[in-house]
Amino acid sequence: MYIRTDQRKPDELRPISITRNWQTAGESSVLVSFGQTKVLCTGTFEKDVPVWMKGSGKGWVTAEYEMLPRATSDRNKRESRKGNISGRTHEISRLIARSLRAAVDLEKLGERQIIVDCDVLQADGGTRCAAITGGWLALKDCLQWAADNNFLSSVNDVLINQVAAVSVGILHNTPILDLPYEEDSKAETDMNIVMTAKSEFVEIQGTAEGVTFNRAELDELLRLGETGCQELFSIQNSS
Amino acid sequence: MYIRTDQRKPDELRPISITRNWQTAGESSVLVSFGQTKVLCTGTFEKDVPVWMKGSGKGWVTAEYEMLPRATSDRNKRESRKGNISGRTHEISRLIARSLRAAVDLEKLGERQIIVDCDVLQADGGTRCAAITGGWLALKDCLQWAADNNFLSSVNDVLINQVAAVSVGILHNTPILDLPYEEDSKAETDMNIVMTAKSEFVEIQGTAEGVTFNRAELDELLRLGETGCQELFSIQNSS
Amino acid sequence: MYIRTDQRKPDELRPISITRNWQTAGESSVLVSFGQTKVLCTGTFEKDVPVWMKGSGKGWVTAEYEMLPRATSDRNKRESRKGNISGRTHEISRLIARSLRAAVDLEKLGERQIIVDCDVLQADGGTRCAAITGGWLALKDCLQWAADNNFLSSVNDVLINQVAAVSVGILHNTPILDLPYEEDSKAETDMNIVMTAKSEFVEIQGTAEGVTFNRAELDELLRLGETGCQELFSIQNSS
Amino acid sequence: MYIRTDQRKPDELRPISITRNWQTAGESSVLVSFGQTKVLCTGTFEKDVPVWMKGSGKGWVTAEYEMLPRATSDRNKRESRKGNISGRTHEISRLIARSLRAAVDLEKLGERQIIVDCDVLQADGGTRCAAITGGWLALKDCLQWAADNNFLSSVNDVLINQVAAVSVGILHNTPILDLPYEEDSKAETDMNIVMTAKSEFVEIQGTAEGVTFNRAELDELLRLGETGCQELFSIQNSS
Amino acid sequence: MYIRTDQRKPDELRPISITRNWQTAGESSVLVSFGQTKVLCTGTFEKDVPVWMKGSGKGWVTAEYEMLPRATSDRNKRESRKGNISGRTHEISRLIARSLRAAVDLEKLGERQIIVDCDVLQADGGTRCAAITGGWLALKDCLQWAADNNFLSSVNDVLINQVAAVSVGILHNTPILDLPYEEDSKAETDMNIVMTAKSEFVEIQGTAEGVTFNRAELDELLRLGETGCQELFSIQNSS
Amino acid sequence: MYIRTDQRKPDELRPISITRNWQTAGESSVLVSFGQTKVLCTGTFEKDVPVWMKGSGKGWVTAEYEMLPRATSDRNKRESRKGNISGRTHEISRLIARSLRAAVDLEKLGERQIIVDCDVLQADGGTRCAAITGGWLALKDCLQWAADNNFLSSVNDVLINQVAAVSVGILHNTPILDLPYEEDSKAETDMNIVMTAKSEFVEIQGTAEGVTFNRAELDELLRLGETGCQELFSIQNSS
Repeated sequence: MYIRTDQRKPDELRPISITRNWQTAGESSVLVSFGQTKVLCTGTFEKDVPVWMKGSGKGWVTAEYEMLPRATSDRNKRESRKGNISGRTHEISRLIARSLRAAVDLEKLGERQIIVDCDVLQADGGTRCAAITGGWLALKDCLQWAADNNFLSSVNDVLINQVAAVSVGILHNTPILDLPYEEDSKAETDMNIVMTAKSEFVEIQGTAEGVTFNRAELDELLRLGETGCQELFSIQNSS
Repeated sequence: MYIRTDQRKPDELRPISITRNWQTAGESSVLVSFGQTKVLCTGTFEKDVPVWMKGSGKGWVTAEYEMLPRATSDRNKRESRKGNISGRTHEISRLIARSLRAAVDLEKLGERQIIVDCDVLQADGGTRCAAITGGWLALKDCLQWAADNNFLSSVNDVLINQVAAVSVGILHNTPILDLPYEEDSKAETDMNIVMTAKSEFVEIQGTAEGVTFNRAELDELLRLGETGCQELFSIQNSS
Repeated sequence: MYIRTDQRKPDELRPISITRNWQTAGESSVLVSFGQTKVLCTGTFEKDVPVWMKGSGKGWVTAEYEMLPRATSDRNKRESRKGNISGRTHEISRLIARSLRAAVDLEKLGERQIIVDCDVLQADGGTRCAAITGGWLALKDCLQWAADNNFLSSVNDVLINQVAAVSVGILHNTPILDLPYEEDSKAETDMNIVMTAKSEFVEIQGTAEGVTFNRAELDELLRLGETGCQELFSIQNSS
Repeated sequence: MYIRTDQRKPDELRPISITRNWQTAGESSVLVSFGQTKVLCTGTFEKDVPVWMKGSGKGWVTAEYEMLPRATSDRNKRESRKGNISGRTHEISRLIARSLRAAVDLEKLGERQIIVDCDVLQADGGTRCAAITGGWLALKDCLQWAADNNFLSSVNDVLINQVAAVSVGILHNTPILDLPYEEDSKAETDMNIVMTAKSEFVEIQGTAEGVTFNRAELDELLRLGETGCQELFSIQNSS
Repeated sequence: MYIRTDQRKPDELRPISITRNWQTAGESSVLVSFGQTKVLCTGTFEKDVPVWMKGSGKGWVTAEYEMLPRATSDRNKRESRKGNISGRTHEISRLIARSLRAAVDLEKLGERQIIVDCDVLQADGGTRCAAITGGWLALKDCLQWAADNNFLSSVNDVLINQVAAVSVGILHNTPILDLPYEEDSKAETDMNIVMTAKSEFVEIQGTAEGVTFNRAELDELLRLGETGCQELFSIQNSS
Repeated sequence: MYIRTDQRKPDELRPISITRNWQTAGESSVLVSFGQTKVLCTGTFEKDVPVWMKGSGKGWVTAEYEMLPRATSDRNKRESRKGNISGRTHEISRLIARSLRAAVDLEKLGERQIIVDCDVLQADGGTRCAAITGGWLALKDCLQWAADNNFLSSVNDVLINQVAAVSVGILHNTPILDLPYEEDSKAETDMNIVMTAKSEFVEIQGTAEGVTFNRAELDELLRLGETGCQELFSIQNSS
């Protein structure tokens, strides 16, 4: 049977840490770590929605993800200097945004926008899941700021779901939870699961590059994901 | 119970048509329709792999997806004139590429590259699934071209999986198969399922914008997707 | 004397085919073939003119030309991924737009815009001429759509010219009509002629790369061009 | 009959001035004026051809055209700051390059490249024609520099044609030569004619925006163009 | 002791020439030479300020610097074709703009904008200083144009400082004034000094690449700079 | 006399903190704070120099500066999404790079490159100075890493200067040290001073927007800058 390099059990998360109010800039600021992965999530509250939503009566939540050039063991060229953002950056930003929107009643938010910036300071696998998990707290704290400043009457009306995310995968035929880069880069299947605290699904993205997976494996991955998310909800709540 | 606008049963595909050798440019050319959705898939065989794979002994399969500006009921600005491709275009191109790579033994392909261009001539929902389903045939025909021209000794060694894709979703609480734009734009949950003819999964991408979905719903969506894919495999085989 | 590879006479067009209403997206949709060259022309009617024309009381007609990456025997990188459109694409788009504007009384059109998208599905020489010839029908059908939908009182007031285009050239000292890629790439002189059904000129673009041409040759090229355009007008009319 | 604002006869050029060696940077430097239009043409000799021509045994001549932002009565945003060059700039650069290549025997040039930069310091109509006429001298002087520095054995072998260009047009039904901006902007037809001193054609680009032109008018425009070019050849020769 | 290649004394300027009204396009046009360095400075007067300043009651002065591709002994690729402007171009444009703003009382200017375009026709060191020195005259003449056309009641109220700039540096341990490219490229320290006619500083930008400089050297550089600027003020005044 | 909002004396630095090895990614990682300004400096060691330096026998040191979008009290659009980096970002990156190169004997470094990434996590004035001061330690630790891994025989040979930077300015006629954003945005004069521990100058960049400064004020600013840098050297040494 496959023994993980850091001795974790297959269904064990890495050490998770969440620091709220890490900085003073931003309506909210959350530093989240999943092991060596470190993401700074910052909430911005805007009194207006983007032009294309004006007059809809509804609010908007969006997110932008980006990695510092030396977040990884090899340095990546800055996307700002390449002149455009990569498909991967686009894709992850969109995933985080959709996941956070699932937490909010946009009609109750009214014509305001919340932007959650997720900047990866250090990357060791699972950055998008850390960003969603920390980003949800940045979103919550940003809504609280808006309530404290009389832009919202109540956070509870607007924040309808608690959201967290975790990666699962299959390595050496073993389904495992929360893969660091070393495992992620060798996994036969890689899946990101975004859930609510009510155990409903927000997003499932599973990919088999090379080795396809069958229904039994999928079921086990979904079980692991649910376990991991439940643990993350309780860490969010105690942070 | 929800009655579909085109009277289809929940588990019924739209009329599918696949025309091979639709054009003479390209090593292969497949025009695929899922109802009003029409995608032109063209295979290009290159004798070399991209620079970053040189010397690896392995081949590469990639794909590029794009929509004509007036494929849709409203005209979209051309991405070439906007100066960069959108997150959506990036994301779908990457999904198609990963799905097609799952069909190929890259080591057996050797240091060659196959590019499958998927240009959406008309879009009415499910364009990425039509592109994967038609693209797999463009891939197969391109490999056949390579075998006929002595770049490969056999297609069967290289083409290890038959791949197709279909969209499923939940609308008015009813799980349904192969959504046209009108249903897709209102669906509570939207999922794309990419499978092999051996009933294994290549990709699962499920998204809930607004209404989350539970495990029972997920199970039904997976069942519908498998049904749809099986039908697509038989259409691919008889085309 | 020079014998053409496809046995055509010097003043003979390739087989021309024009299919109106090829797709349902777009106010009009025309698929035009000049031999192996295949262009999809789609008309879009917009109720407003571009910002810089607001208040002028006049309408606008524009066009955008682009080739699919594998329209040609070698694959071209997508312009959307290169980040900008080439000089050639710019130049041809502008030529088509000017040619189609010559067909329309912009004052009678009023403050509306028509965009004709010309996407080359397969390229074998003469793509810009096919685009103008098919684009004129897409323009006409788009105006008819506007009349049918009460945006215009009459097509005849607005559409003041019938326009078509054909390429001519000199190869092995022989003036010839409607050159496929194989002839075009070796021609000493290459000329595109855009005319009206009244035998007046809209555009003449003649280029000598390497071998210059004299007045007698120019006269013969103009004669060939007029012959070809007359034939195209009758094909447009019967399509 | 139409009287030109500057009292010129229909077939009369504006005052032309050509200054060779206007600057010391560049292998050659020519400042050319057609009336108030002023273009700085600079020749660069490169010992290599572009990558795509390596090994062909042939040389290359190219040109780049651009306008200073306040060359015109209204200021234009710099193309460098807009992030790409316009279709017009592309189109004119390509025209100048083709015209200058017609002057050179690329095989005799051998694997070297000449770049002629044409920067419009002030624009009052006819900038592309001034650029070709001045650019030909910059090309000639650049070849002379190459001969003087032993990169070529002789200029005469390589420079096989003398090239100049002039604009003609129809205004108030009157064919006229060398239009300043005021006439150009109102002309019914606008044509640029590039010729050799042997009275052969290099390029003809005639455009009718609004009013089409017939064969008799075309013949008169060609006659005016030839007259103008002959005069420009003698000015080039005496500069 | 170090003898300068052009025999100048350490505190001697190159021959300076300033031609006002060099062109007719532009509200003002100044051609300035510092030795072989030649910069065309053109003033544009706009009746509005940029959007971000609307309603402030204040005006704005900005500047754009760019070099022709063959201003230098080696040809540089055009920034318009590279798709963005370099850090150097940005930096110098900003320096010129700040320097010229120091000459103007923006409140008295009112909500108007002046743009000074500084295009380097030939570069032999000190281009930014020539641009500031010539640009100040283009600014002054542009204000005069505005007064003559009743957009301003008086130039003197608005133009509160006379500004000029010069480069100084240390080469072979010798502080020198107004370095041509040959000296500039070898200098141990390079400094640009922008001053007013009242001997106050507008900008000091000193850089040591390789050899740092001490306080005594700095003092001598400041003295040389002041000497040079005083001479430039008198040349501006007599031009 | 002007009393600073945070009660500091005119020549007093804000609280400075420097944390080495803040992250494990990167050959070195330094988190530096000047008050609320927080910059993450990361060193990357590359075994090769950029292409244009190959064969020179010399090494290269460069730096890239960028701000997170919500480092400031208002959110800035990401430069990666705008498609290019601003003039300000370019300018500061170049300043940091020149300053750090002054610390290194490039010949002794040999053909290797060090990249120091300076990412501003929170911005409250003086970000470029914090980046240089922290970046010098990231540079030093990166050289130490290279020595520890046998790419260099000794750090001392290569690291020839200790470098730090501080901002000074004049506010309400009072010269002050180390300005936070609130003071910086209102200052009459703003100057950045980069020095070595031997009290020599590396860079001086002084700017007067609106109010020019005289020689006596300049002398006082230089004195304050030297005081501040001396203190920073001792903080660097004890970190």
